[in-house]
Amino acid sequence: MRELKEQVYRANMELHKNRLAPLTWGNVSQADRARGIMAIKPSGVPYEELKPEDMVIVSLETGERVEGRLNPSSDTPTHLALYRAFDKVGGITHTHSPYATAWAQAGRAIPCLGTTHADGFFGEIPVTRYVSADEAQRAYEAETGTVIVEAFQGRDPLHTPGVLVRGHGPFTWGETASASVHNAITLEEVARMGLLTLLLNFNALDLPEALQIKHFERKHGPNAYYGQR
Amino acid sequence: MRELKEQVYRANMELHKNRLAPLTWGNVSQADRARGIMAIKPSGVPYEELKPEDMVIVSLETGERVEGRLNPSSDTPTHLALYRAFDKVGGITHTHSPYATAWAQAGRAIPCLGTTHADGFFGEIPVTRYVSADEAQRAYEAETGTVIVEAFQGRDPLHTPGVLVRGHGPFTWGETASASVHNAITLEEVARMGLLTLLLNFNALDLPEALQIKHFERKHGPNAYYGQR
Amino acid sequence: MRELKEQVYRANMELHKNRLAPLTWGNVSQADRARGIMAIKPSGVPYEELKPEDMVIVSLETGERVEGRLNPSSDTPTHLALYRAFDKVGGITHTHSPYATAWAQAGRAIPCLGTTHADGFFGEIPVTRYVSADEAQRAYEAETGTVIVEAFQGRDPLHTPGVLVRGHGPFTWGETASASVHNAITLEEVARMGLLTLLLNFNALDLPEALQIKHFERKHGPNAYYGQR
Amino acid sequence: MRELKEQVYRANMELHKNRLAPLTWGNVSQADRARGIMAIKPSGVPYEELKPEDMVIVSLETGERVEGRLNPSSDTPTHLALYRAFDKVGGITHTHSPYATAWAQAGRAIPCLGTTHADGFFGEIPVTRYVSADEAQRAYEAETGTVIVEAFQGRDPLHTPGVLVRGHGPFTWGETASASVHNAITLEEVARMGLLTLLLNFNALDLPEALQIKHFERKHGPNAYYGQR
Repeated sequence: MRELKEQVYRANMELHKNRLAPLTWGNVSQADRARGIMAIKPSGVPYEELKPEDMVIVSLETGERVEGRLNPSSDTPTHLALYRAFDKVGGITHTHSPYATAWAQAGRAIPCLGTTHADGFFGEIPVTRYVSADEAQRAYEAETGTVIVEAFQGRDPLHTPGVLVRGHGPFTWGETASASVHNAITLEEVARMGLLTLLLNFNALDLPEALQIKHFERKHGPNAYYGQR
Repeated sequence: MRELKEQVYRANMELHKNRLAPLTWGNVSQADRARGIMAIKPSGVPYEELKPEDMVIVSLETGERVEGRLNPSSDTPTHLALYRAFDKVGGITHTHSPYATAWAQAGRAIPCLGTTHADGFFGEIPVTRYVSADEAQRAYEAETGTVIVEAFQGRDPLHTPGVLVRGHGPFTWGETASASVHNAITLEEVARMGLLTLLLNFNALDLPEALQIKHFERKHGPNAYYGQR
Repeated sequence: MRELKEQVYRANMELHKNRLAPLTWGNVSQADRARGIMAIKPSGVPYEELKPEDMVIVSLETGERVEGRLNPSSDTPTHLALYRAFDKVGGITHTHSPYATAWAQAGRAIPCLGTTHADGFFGEIPVTRYVSADEAQRAYEAETGTVIVEAFQGRDPLHTPGVLVRGHGPFTWGETASASVHNAITLEEVARMGLLTLLLNFNALDLPEALQIKHFERKHGPNAYYGQR
Repeated sequence: MRELKEQVYRANMELHKNRLAPLTWGNVSQADRARGIMAIKPSGVPYEELKPEDMVIVSLETGERVEGRLNPSSDTPTHLALYRAFDKVGGITHTHSPYATAWAQAGRAIPCLGTTHADGFFGEIPVTRYVSADEAQRAYEAETGTVIVEAFQGRDPLHTPGVLVRGHGPFTWGETASASVHNAITLEEVARMGLLTLLLNFNALDLPEALQIKHFERKHGPNAYYGQR
């Protein structure tokens, strides 16, 4: 468990270091499915004061705190809902990074305008519906997970490892906490480039589908040749 | 008083460190209502040269300097007007941070477009009228306080802890100097996200009211569950 | 002369530290009118390698190098033209900072939209005409000075201590090199805020004249009360 | 070869330090034409972990790895195509820097709007066509070189040392790896200023041709007088 906490701590700090999470905003978790637990950042603690041992261990099944003195992130039920629905996901990141949040607030999915996007996300990055008043009243954070899962009907969450929650901001994921942070950094860059592209050409074209497939597969397909194997 | 000066010094330096106040711009104060005083940054001193003992002590009632060699911030009368009108406020921050100032110069209140805003500010962040020529002639900085207090008729200043002074820039507040700086950071992020949102969708919708209430209450309501209690 | 070089070196490094001048761009000079000289940054040397003794001493009258191994900035004749035309100016800064340069490229003067502008610059920040093909052929850098001086017919250069050269970028000045760098920082902030303001309200109003005068005078007028005297 | 690797390592790190390449994005190479080789960054290694000895040596003729344990950048065939077509080029940089990429995604060449552009690039910075589906299927990275070379029919690659690959991002070059990185920094600044200029004036004029020629020649012509010779 010390190793899990250490990895989650480092992933949270990387989020902060990359300026995606000022003050106490943002949170990263990682699951250990064999043990049925996840480690997540505590709620409302400034990054400057975080320590590895502050990470909170929560049961994936019951959502209860298994270990740790501090309250887990208030977004914990959203993380749990995603681990339950997406069984290949091992790490989750939530931020209020400015460009991705702007798309979420504008209620627009991010179209795939170029290879930076295609390298990391297959197809558009979808935007959810709003959580309804009833859902917010009942179990706001868990229902935030529900609207994300709804938006992924017919999509593979590991091919498009992120989403914009309408009026809220981005969640990204991956096989580990670290991979989910890398996807959060990529999503913010893609959101920024996308907005700048529209300022230059409001009718900018999507990247041709053949290039979308090529870029995704050279990094993530069975014959991927990006990186060191 | 040493403790008060130290807190105000640290809050001012946090403002600078977060890049909300270049050169000598910006100022933070904190009141000690039991003693009838506030500590505030001196006028026109570069942040690199500031020391805790440079903070100036001013009487909340008379506005006169009680302790300190240096002149207090030229915005001191605005701070005093706000402490007098808003009796729960214990700390005040003023900046010329670029996105919030752009909204102030555009003469537009910032609508609540998402949860980043709702977490920190209930409802729109209002914009004041201009200080009139007569008022500017008479007592410019004190009358800057007047137009802020006018804009808060019917609003709770601790629920919406900030304002845009028309053609000037933001003032934020909170229970302490440190809280007012955190609100200044949040306001600048919200102002940036809001502008970016409008570039993507000039008719972006306000966050539904149920979600505005939910987010504000989970952080600030009687049953708040954000953070560590 | 060592003191002069040291001051000009420090002002150049402050420009770089404030991210207004990447690579070898930008230059700052300071005049010593009693001795009839100025010190200026050498041409094309990366900031990381600059040393105080690299500053080049040039005669204000002849434009010839009086001391130093290195070639002075290629913009030296522009600096000389400004020192000759504006006799109260003691320091000059030139940058290609992005927002100010965007206004220069757009061919638009920056209107006074708020108090950040009014604190540092009285009235609009003017834009020159283009240097003509003939002038460019004859003495390009000196004629850059000519178009600036033309734009200041009827203006006080110390009240409006900066200009946008059409299609080129900003020059700012002040009583010292350090003051001219501070004005370059302020101009870039004002240029950024101004552009952001127009994105929010393309018909944003100028700051009312009474407030323009008030702000300028509280900082620069005979009864100025900003800062420490 | 140690010296070549060291230079390429330093150029890659300068790219990262200047925030043009987050995560593992971007790559820089340098050719040694006498030996018929180039050194290039390995694929998918985070900058924080790069060491000079990780640089990979590739044959300019065959494209095969001559020395090094790691796989070379997946963009290696694009670099090779450019070295083969542009015989004066000695260093190449590829980034996904946000503003240049936005122009590439918008499918717009960057017009020469000012002297920052004219100092570094003669005339517009062209945008290629998309790589076709067939080309992508056959030899995607090599064909990326093909569309660049096509776009330079009738242009001198050392006078306009960069290009935007449609839907992808910028490639820049120069006589050395270090020069190509400087051109990547300049291109990103020019791309940013250009976009900001269009926001202020959608019909902004190109810099008059006489000034374009003057600026290019004072830095790069036979009588260049910028810098130290």
